[in-house]
Amino acid sequence: MRIVVALGGNALLRRDQPPTAENQLENIRSAASQLARVAEKHDLVITHGNGPQVGLLALQADAYVKVDAYPLDVLGAQTDGMIGYLLEQELANRLPGTREVATLITRVEVDPKDPAFRHPSKPIGPVYGKVESEQIATAKGWSMAPDGSAFRRVVASPQPVRVLGLQAIRWLLERGALVIAAGGGGIPVARYKDTKDLQGVEAVIDKDLCSSLLARELQADLLVIATDVSAVFLDWGKPTQNAIDKVTPQDLSQYDFAAGSMGPKVEAAQAFVLATGKRAVIGSLEQIEGMLEGSAGTQVYSASLGNADIR
Amino acid sequence: MRIVVALGGNALLRRDQPPTAENQLENIRSAASQLARVAEKHDLVITHGNGPQVGLLALQADAYVKVDAYPLDVLGAQTDGMIGYLLEQELANRLPGTREVATLITRVEVDPKDPAFRHPSKPIGPVYGKVESEQIATAKGWSMAPDGSAFRRVVASPQPVRVLGLQAIRWLLERGALVIAAGGGGIPVARYKDTKDLQGVEAVIDKDLCSSLLARELQADLLVIATDVSAVFLDWGKPTQNAIDKVTPQDLSQYDFAAGSMGPKVEAAQAFVLATGKRAVIGSLEQIEGMLEGSAGTQVYSASLGNADIR
Repeated sequence: MRIVVALGGNALLRRDQPPTAENQLENIRSAASQLARVAEKHDLVITHGNGPQVGLLALQADAYVKVDAYPLDVLGAQTDGMIGYLLEQELANRLPGTREVATLITRVEVDPKDPAFRHPSKPIGPVYGKVESEQIATAKGWSMAPDGSAFRRVVASPQPVRVLGLQAIRWLLERGALVIAAGGGGIPVARYKDTKDLQGVEAVIDKDLCSSLLARELQADLLVIATDVSAVFLDWGKPTQNAIDKVTPQDLSQYDFAAGSMGPKVEAAQAFVLATGKRAVIGSLEQIEGMLEGSAGTQVYSASLGNADIR
Repeated sequence: MRIVVALGGNALLRRDQPPTAENQLENIRSAASQLARVAEKHDLVITHGNGPQVGLLALQADAYVKVDAYPLDVLGAQTDGMIGYLLEQELANRLPGTREVATLITRVEVDPKDPAFRHPSKPIGPVYGKVESEQIATAKGWSMAPDGSAFRRVVASPQPVRVLGLQAIRWLLERGALVIAAGGGGIPVARYKDTKDLQGVEAVIDKDLCSSLLARELQADLLVIATDVSAVFLDWGKPTQNAIDKVTPQDLSQYDFAAGSMGPKVEAAQAFVLATGKRAVIGSLEQIEGMLEGSAGTQVYSASLGNADIR
């Protein structure tokens, strides 16, 4: 199978962990162990989030006052280099001589008129208490929004319109390489009407929506959205909380899920299944083999096939 | 021809320029205009330095005290994502529909016993006056060294031993892609004797020595080392200053050039020419076409061929 696996930024750095290099490396090693086993049997494209990481780089850039902070597209590209390198190294360490591992920097075109530019929604960086969040909003002019019981910076998150550099990804896959690409949802670029050139934009694309588009373009057989929970839950956090095992995209549409969190994952899975008739699964990386087999996570399958399609 | 072009970190950000995103983008646009013309006729691999950029990231990381600064291998990977993205975008804007442009993250193996780890020599980051340099050395524990009339931070710069991910570069070149790779001299990694795994090391590899090794491995026809001066000069800065037009590797050996500056460029050109019998050239990117034709820069050619080899 050709599989696209989208790794959550929070799967690489848990919400309760300080964003040290050591913590990230430890999580990446754990993720690489799971993914290397999959890569022994399947063709794999790995994408990843960058919310905690791009937020940290923005804080670091802001703290060094002698040079203005770089825009979010450039900071996002920095996280792609960093996370891509660490993932590639740990995967290559676990796949000696079996698969080439290649990390590509990926730009993704967005619409400069996307309404998301007026409504920042994507949380990046660390969580803050209410008082500190208000101080930051005032001092730095950042948009802040609730995230669970805490607050985080939010930035514009336009829809991915076109993944650039697909051809290189395809060429490497054809040769049997494991490809790491579209980190952080891809680097957001846009074509403004006064120029034919693409240029960077201040945003962070949702990595699940981008991975869904990428999986469609690559004609993947399966889209895996790996996160820090074991499945999609109904009534999350309530006594009636209940995991969804198997569901069609149509049935998923009756529920509401948290924007900036489970919402985009569900939307990404739905879009892939509706467009391709193939399967998508949302769950924890620790259960990746069960997710592939159809026995773990939330399996999203095409209504036209029925759940007999799930092995 | 298959050409490897090594872009100086200072060519992307001049010594007298503040390292703003705007300045880098402007310089990268200028470089991309020159390189796109070459890419219309030749197969191109572009490498680049990262001295000013990795130094800035180290300062930013140091300024944000809540999280320990990431090690130099990780910061180097961040610069590869950033510079690679900006270069790819501006090249792709100038090569619409003619060549795919792909940016790969490249790790380079070094020897953990390299004596360079005990003698930091590679300048990174901004220049400082003597007093400020001494304050920084005391406050941060960084090694500082003279650079011209100023001072800069210096870090370990081990010899590149093996470029990893060569296969992916070759596959993309075979398909006609322009490849950006081995940014910042590659991300330094090493195998310590207690493990078979590669892991990151605190260093910055010289990008010219890495590019020379890469050019040999890719069987390039020409190695271009693009810098901010028009040629290699004898008696640099003296009244007797004199540009070298054409020279063999053997003849270059009689002269001394500045370590951390022209020294590694000369060494890189010599090593490529001696190993391959092909040509290397050191000069300014503005004269790239003349450098390719043999009429600009310092042309380093194989003694066995004579300078009739230079077109």
